[in-house]
Amino acid sequence: MKKTALIMAGGRGERFWPKSRQNMPKQFLSLTDDDKTMIQLTVERILPLVDMEDIFIATNQDYKALVREQLPQLPEQNILCEPVGKNTAPCIGLGAVHIAKKYEDALMFVLPSDHLIKMHKIFLRSLQDACDVAEQGENLVTIGITPSSPETGYGYIRFDAEHTLGRAFKVEQFVEKPNLEKAKEYLNSGLYMWNSGMFTWKVSTILKNIQTFMPQTYDGLQRIGQAIGTEQENEVLAREFTAFKSESIDYGIMEKASNIYILTSAFGWDDVGSWLAVGRIKKTNELGNVVNGNAITVDTQNTIIQGDKKLIATVGLENMIIVDTPDALLVCEKDHAGEIKKVLENLKICNRTEYL
Amino acid sequence: MKKTALIMAGGRGERFWPKSRQNMPKQFLSLTDDDKTMIQLTVERILPLVDMEDIFIATNQDYKALVREQLPQLPEQNILCEPVGKNTAPCIGLGAVHIAKKYEDALMFVLPSDHLIKMHKIFLRSLQDACDVAEQGENLVTIGITPSSPETGYGYIRFDAEHTLGRAFKVEQFVEKPNLEKAKEYLNSGLYMWNSGMFTWKVSTILKNIQTFMPQTYDGLQRIGQAIGTEQENEVLAREFTAFKSESIDYGIMEKASNIYILTSAFGWDDVGSWLAVGRIKKTNELGNVVNGNAITVDTQNTIIQGDKKLIATVGLENMIIVDTPDALLVCEKDHAGEIKKVLENLKICNRTEYL
Repeated sequence: MKKTALIMAGGRGERFWPKSRQNMPKQFLSLTDDDKTMIQLTVERILPLVDMEDIFIATNQDYKALVREQLPQLPEQNILCEPVGKNTAPCIGLGAVHIAKKYEDALMFVLPSDHLIKMHKIFLRSLQDACDVAEQGENLVTIGITPSSPETGYGYIRFDAEHTLGRAFKVEQFVEKPNLEKAKEYLNSGLYMWNSGMFTWKVSTILKNIQTFMPQTYDGLQRIGQAIGTEQENEVLAREFTAFKSESIDYGIMEKASNIYILTSAFGWDDVGSWLAVGRIKKTNELGNVVNGNAITVDTQNTIIQGDKKLIATVGLENMIIVDTPDALLVCEKDHAGEIKKVLENLKICNRTEYL
Repeated sequence: MKKTALIMAGGRGERFWPKSRQNMPKQFLSLTDDDKTMIQLTVERILPLVDMEDIFIATNQDYKALVREQLPQLPEQNILCEPVGKNTAPCIGLGAVHIAKKYEDALMFVLPSDHLIKMHKIFLRSLQDACDVAEQGENLVTIGITPSSPETGYGYIRFDAEHTLGRAFKVEQFVEKPNLEKAKEYLNSGLYMWNSGMFTWKVSTILKNIQTFMPQTYDGLQRIGQAIGTEQENEVLAREFTAFKSESIDYGIMEKASNIYILTSAFGWDDVGSWLAVGRIKKTNELGNVVNGNAITVDTQNTIIQGDKKLIATVGLENMIIVDTPDALLVCEKDHAGEIKKVLENLKICNRTEYL
């Protein structure tokens, strides 16, 4: 069966501020040792399985130009612009009706645009395994990540190790982000995986599930699908999409559906969730520093320095994050990386939108 | 007797890098809550005692334009440019021959251009007291600072509290920078003051002492003095000054001379020796931060932020120094402020002179 992909690239990630901005979110930045941006790496990674013309990017009008610039080989009509953000369920539905319009039915990978995967071949083998399960009957397949710590920032998926299909396990339950005690319990039980937000299914399967669990959205998606390629396309899209209920695919479908399977394998995954990830991902020197730009470090260790041409001199630092851009500078102690959002809240309150 | 002043402004202070540079040293920066620069404050402070036309600035050719810009009222011929830096003794000698050329004899204050004095009236009273002692016979008068901690960065002066002249005490000994144990001993003995580098004497007295203890320098100074106002002035200055032995006034004269008196009073003195001084001098907010520029601080305390237009966001910082300039940024832990010079050493080794 034809393989297609929907890459979700509408996020407005704030956690890489001041490098990420509302007009330049994380997926369009290079955050690894590779010069390529996160979305370029995401597309490149699946090209052995999916033709460029079958890759769809869901984003919004603000980022359309960035997508075209960073992915010049991608057909323009494969850039799907959501009129407003409505979380992942309507986004995936929009991708599904576009793919359904192009092919009667097809396999559909749903992938975030801003995760890092280090071992491409192993990852591709997982996607292939997912196809094998998704093609049988009406299965929804998710890619799980074996948890390595009691993370409270991820959703968890409980699976039944006794109940297999191909290389996948039957999913028992999608669980929302837990508190630390629950997360430890999940980690130690060996019965849970992290929810990576990567899915594989047939377009027909996901649309059938949307019809069952989100019937109003389904009806709107049908009207959008009918309008694709017509003069009314944008008008219908704007009207219908704006009316959708904002809903995550996890809550809208996965927590309710049956026939869900989970695949996991160790392909070196990182969601690159904050500047701290850069310390894990990028090359560090012998003192544990990650340095990009023009820097002189004196008595400095375990510090992330992201600059450009300006000279950055550090003296006596440990566990710091320094990010310099032309109009804004961040200096943050690593343990406080979660509070970077407070800077953005402050900027919003003061209406200093030029820095957002 | 006529009162004159020599303000020494040739220093290339590195400790306020990256704000201070070789082409913009500390004395030309504003480091207090006042918008005025250190040298402007120094001149303003003594104007009640010394006419502007009797204030001489010793500097070098590189800073002549800065002096003219910052002190437009000062007569241009009062800017004395040393052809090369030869430490304080030749510098003071050069000032002395210029003053001797203008007035047969005069009182001469020697003042650093980059110290902070908070209580102007008390300071002026000390200078007046110093004049009273210096005018009698051939006394050299120094202004001492009552030590408040066992500083190892200052020279110390031992005085005889039993032997007074006017409001001054007889100096027993100039002592070079001590180690910490010695400094504690000096502090606790109550017999020592810090050497502030501020002096008062008659021009005739200091020249006589130079003649006695630095005869070669004296001869050169005489030739320079004779050439002042002639076509050969610059040529003679360059030749003679370049040949001078580099020598501090402390080592060359004060450690050897007799008839030295010391005056002290509490006028709120700070040598503004490093960025740490800015934390003492400038207004701090309720969290102990000193902020200049466009900053957002989150969970930040006891931190010095010196920026300009660029947004500086700090998160989770304590005891840090952040100084942002258009081409260079410093991030330094306060306890490591002494190591900022290592950055400059590194820049020198790499021949990156644009940042020095």
